[in-house]
Amino acid sequence: MAKFYGIGVGPGDSELVTVKASRLLENLDILYTPEAKKGSKSFALGIAEPYLKEQLEIKQRHFPMVRSNSAKEAQWQAISAEIAADVRSGKNVGFITLGDPMVYSTYSYLLALLEKDIDCQTIPGITSFSSMASELGQPLTMDEESLAVLPATAPADKIEAALELHDSIVLMKVANHLDTVLPLLEKLGLLQQTFMVSHSSTDKQQTLLGLAGITPETKLPYFTTFLVKKKIF
Amino acid sequence: MAKFYGIGVGPGDSELVTVKASRLLENLDILYTPEAKKGSKSFALGIAEPYLKEQLEIKQRHFPMVRSNSAKEAQWQAISAEIAADVRSGKNVGFITLGDPMVYSTYSYLLALLEKDIDCQTIPGITSFSSMASELGQPLTMDEESLAVLPATAPADKIEAALELHDSIVLMKVANHLDTVLPLLEKLGLLQQTFMVSHSSTDKQQTLLGLAGITPETKLPYFTTFLVKKKIF
Repeated sequence: MAKFYGIGVGPGDSELVTVKASRLLENLDILYTPEAKKGSKSFALGIAEPYLKEQLEIKQRHFPMVRSNSAKEAQWQAISAEIAADVRSGKNVGFITLGDPMVYSTYSYLLALLEKDIDCQTIPGITSFSSMASELGQPLTMDEESLAVLPATAPADKIEAALELHDSIVLMKVANHLDTVLPLLEKLGLLQQTFMVSHSSTDKQQTLLGLAGITPETKLPYFTTFLVKKKIF
Repeated sequence: MAKFYGIGVGPGDSELVTVKASRLLENLDILYTPEAKKGSKSFALGIAEPYLKEQLEIKQRHFPMVRSNSAKEAQWQAISAEIAADVRSGKNVGFITLGDPMVYSTYSYLLALLEKDIDCQTIPGITSFSSMASELGQPLTMDEESLAVLPATAPADKIEAALELHDSIVLMKVANHLDTVLPLLEKLGLLQQTFMVSHSSTDKQQTLLGLAGITPETKLPYFTTFLVKKKIF
């Protein structure tokens, strides 16, 4: 029976796709992807490419990043109606997300609109923070330790509370929010405990421990994440 | 060149192993696994089994769960010396972990002992909480939300602080600690917001929302996790 699949393609390396995701990707009839910038294909599409069949129909659409006003809401409704029609016509339809579909992905909006009408299945993916931890050889958690994951767009007092409470703290989307994050790390004496990773698991991967030379003005790649570890392994 | 591989095999479904992990598993010469209880094979080994070659040598060893005293420490030293010797003799050696090797895994201890002596590589795996979220269709995080992951063995005041601070809270290892966790969830009015999942992604998977009928005396499977969501999707 035809279905809608939300598929996590992991952090960047095509081999970090799950066996299940690779099999489902090979059997898709239609793949919806976010409109790429400047005519280049999306990063997620590049990761999935080795698994896609030649006859796959790719439908690029503009997916608004949030669903916060009625114009954007209408666009989500339109795309989900189109997906539902494709599934009802017997096509296996996919939507791919970087990392895991349940971690900071617009896929959640699609799922909310579609799950009552058509058969939906979500396939988890390796998160960027799991990938980082493996590359760095730094456990995210051991024994009784705890982990927090926050975007740098969260309120500063919430980020500060998480930095105080937990043993490992992952800060996502830091590139455009260094002016919030760096002062907090400095205030709490955690700059030397912070790993920076860009483009985890790809050949562009860069890592740095200690944030030496990073200032609020530093231009970092969009796919940059901080991992703060109270106890470096 | 021969290496030591720490490989995450994901939450339970053999198809939730990554393509990279499946390829490396197929090429292992020796696999170290924890001694199974009651003569049955370990859960992680069952997940990896479809990818293992027939000639694979399996070395079952007793891996202490913590490294907290000198007797246990000696055992870790002995196992790591044996692994290092195998790698130096040209064998590709693996150690498999449920879920992700960097999330609550004894693999971290092996890595700490081995990484200075031999070539080590860690392959991330799908965590049980990513798998749960996909199965439930419940995002772990959206927009500016935050996620915390804690074991039920953490201090109660820390669990309480995390439940107050974050939008989604994953509580691992709850089966033997319901007497700590249930009163906290009740106190904060979060019982109705809690999903319980056992054996995520396997044919034994069970899910429950609201914890009705769960008391501190309830016997739950060891692989049971709670996902507390302030805003149910």
